Amino acid sequence: MDEMDYYEKSLQLHALHKGKIEIKSKVPVKTPFDIAVACAPGVAEPCLLVAQDPDNARRYSIKANTVAVVSDGSSVLGLGNIGGLASLPVMESKAALLKEFGGVDAFPICLATQDTDEIVETVKNIAPGFGGISLEDISAPRCFEIEERLRAELDIPVFHNDGQGTAIACGAAVINAFKLIGKDLSEVRAVVSGAGVRGNAIVKMLLLLGVREIVVCDSKGILNATRIPEFGEDKIGLLEMTNKEGLSGGLDKAVKGRDLFIGASSPNTITPQMIKSMNKHPVIFATSAPEPEIAPELALAAGARVVGTARADFPNQITNMLVFPGLFRGALDAGAKDITDDMKIAAAYALAGIVSDSELSDEYVTPSVFKEGLTDTISKAVADSWHFT
Amino acid sequence: MDEMDYYEKSLQLHALHKGKIEIKSKVPVKTPFDIAVACAPGVAEPCLLVAQDPDNARRYSIKANTVAVVSDGSSVLGLGNIGGLASLPVMESKAALLKEFGGVDAFPICLATQDTDEIVETVKNIAPGFGGISLEDISAPRCFEIEERLRAELDIPVFHNDGQGTAIACGAAVINAFKLIGKDLSEVRAVVSGAGVRGNAIVKMLLLLGVREIVVCDSKGILNATRIPEFGEDKIGLLEMTNKEGLSGGLDKAVKGRDLFIGASSPNTITPQMIKSMNKHPVIFATSAPEPEIAPELALAAGARVVGTARADFPNQITNMLVFPGLFRGALDAGAKDITDDMKIAAAYALAGIVSDSELSDEYVTPSVFKEGLTDTISKAVADSWHFT
Repeated sequence: MDEMDYYEKSLQLHALHKGKIEIKSKVPVKTPFDIAVACAPGVAEPCLLVAQDPDNARRYSIKANTVAVVSDGSSVLGLGNIGGLASLPVMESKAALLKEFGGVDAFPICLATQDTDEIVETVKNIAPGFGGISLEDISAPRCFEIEERLRAELDIPVFHNDGQGTAIACGAAVINAFKLIGKDLSEVRAVVSGAGVRGNAIVKMLLLLGVREIVVCDSKGILNATRIPEFGEDKIGLLEMTNKEGLSGGLDKAVKGRDLFIGASSPNTITPQMIKSMNKHPVIFATSAPEPEIAPELALAAGARVVGTARADFPNQITNMLVFPGLFRGALDAGAKDITDDMKIAAAYALAGIVSDSELSDEYVTPSVFKEGLTDTISKAVADSWHFT
Repeated sequence: MDEMDYYEKSLQLHALHKGKIEIKSKVPVKTPFDIAVACAPGVAEPCLLVAQDPDNARRYSIKANTVAVVSDGSSVLGLGNIGGLASLPVMESKAALLKEFGGVDAFPICLATQDTDEIVETVKNIAPGFGGISLEDISAPRCFEIEERLRAELDIPVFHNDGQGTAIACGAAVINAFKLIGKDLSEVRAVVSGAGVRGNAIVKMLLLLGVREIVVCDSKGILNATRIPEFGEDKIGLLEMTNKEGLSGGLDKAVKGRDLFIGASSPNTITPQMIKSMNKHPVIFATSAPEPEIAPELALAAGARVVGTARADFPNQITNMLVFPGLFRGALDAGAKDITDDMKIAAAYALAGIVSDSELSDEYVTPSVFKEGLTDTISKAVADSWHFT
């Protein structure tokens, strides 16, 4: 089906239903008795118990299973900064997926502000009724500070889905690719193209998985010490974790002799020639969407062994859809107050493990989002890993 | 059934379901095709159209049918200031009622702040995705400023349900009671006991309905000019609209020679003796909850002709449940940007009109919340009256 058809069908769908989610009552409110029990006067009782002990909110209210999907619409799909209101259809999609794949009740909160302080204050102020916060499509570098401050100030999990969700999916793909190749992750030499939301999270994920040799490129080339004057805090942080050899130059320099390329940048960033300069039969994860950093057939022709993209119509899809429903399911089940590094690592290994040894192949390092048991496997691993901390 | 049983049953219900509402997807997300249409890449199309024209949000997103039920939990039921989180079960009830009775998708937003400025900023910042705001259980006088500022700054209806919803129900009861009695509202001499959220809204409603002679009492007695030094802005405003005769003293002074008593205060405020000092066969609406300002049987024994309370187990229930589902239904259907005085008057007359001439009696001036056609009648009147402005 042509991509244009999806757009047209999507518009019809959205016009027909006026949005994609709805609220339903889980309890009957059809008789005076129902109302006396579910509303006044009965409802005073759970209120009192929550007032006495805030932890009771998870026993008697929707907080136990509810996540806010929060966006300021500053970095939406390939559309850029379209603002909070225009991001609403995307946030509804996330809410629909969280329910369908994770059984999580999620509600979109689309913001009228793109100011970091205001976003932090606003989310803090509406947080009591939620069991988790999924930050979505907020542009870098603001998203880093927003996430960090909210994690510090709230006692519920705060997760930046674009970055961390994608990074966990990427991590699972990396685990399986090098399992197939038979190379220990500590020996893998990696290059990450893109120093934004996803690039940043992917670098941190690779480090958590034990990858030690990473070099990062942004649109101006390799991140190195000579460029510090032009860097914000986020890129200084990235540099501290990468490029120990002090490389400089463009992506063509960065890829030489690497085993792994991860693209979190823009279409047509890496060329067949660059792939040929990498170590033999490299792994290429080109996650730019909808167009990848290189077309899979070109990457394979240039000698790549495992190729993944963000798309469902190529093998090895790398998408946060594989991750966030199970991750929030597990965090809510555990009553987690944070998403820790341990939980992210657990999610990546759980996702990787869903591909069995007999299924694992160059064309199958990540499972389909429809794979049976996906959510259960990830949520259990995430919940266990919170309980363990 | 004993009231204690409602509390126990309510707790069981809340524990069983972990809250009373859930999110459902209105569209399928079960196949790759579903996801390509409802999520990426298809969803980019409605986003783009909303980015081009914000009015498209009502065509392609949940904004068309979605209301935020916002509370800081500062004045909840008879429980007082229990805070935002503990108010969540009540806000879930409102959301359940809005869906069941009005077909409106409502989501509870329970605030971590009780600061007026912060509440205004927070609600403004999360407003884009909503088609209306229902403020609930926010204490006076902060609620007046919060409502006023939000109405001024937002282009969606903002409604303070405790005050205005109750006042509209009260207005309908007043219309029908004096229709029965055969007295023009401009001739009615009224006393309102209570100068808080509901008292304030009730006075404004009576004025909108053409009642001219109103005196208001708070716990210290009649609002009059000698007390201005102790008044805040809200009571000064009330005084400007009432007590033209310059009365002073307690409620016993205020009720003398009145046709209508409306209580929005506390139990046992008006005595049988006071009712005897009113005009012959007065109308007594004692809306304090759960215990009214006077027991209906005592009021009737003292000569009252029409008696109403907030309770479903006595005749003539006066509750905002009669109003807010239909009111928001109508406002959303009309794409209204405000709740105007005309819409409130229309709602009161529509609600009154639901009781037919043949049904109208001393024991039946307000319909049951389960009366067929209730929501439709009110919503049409409200929507028409917005279109008319």
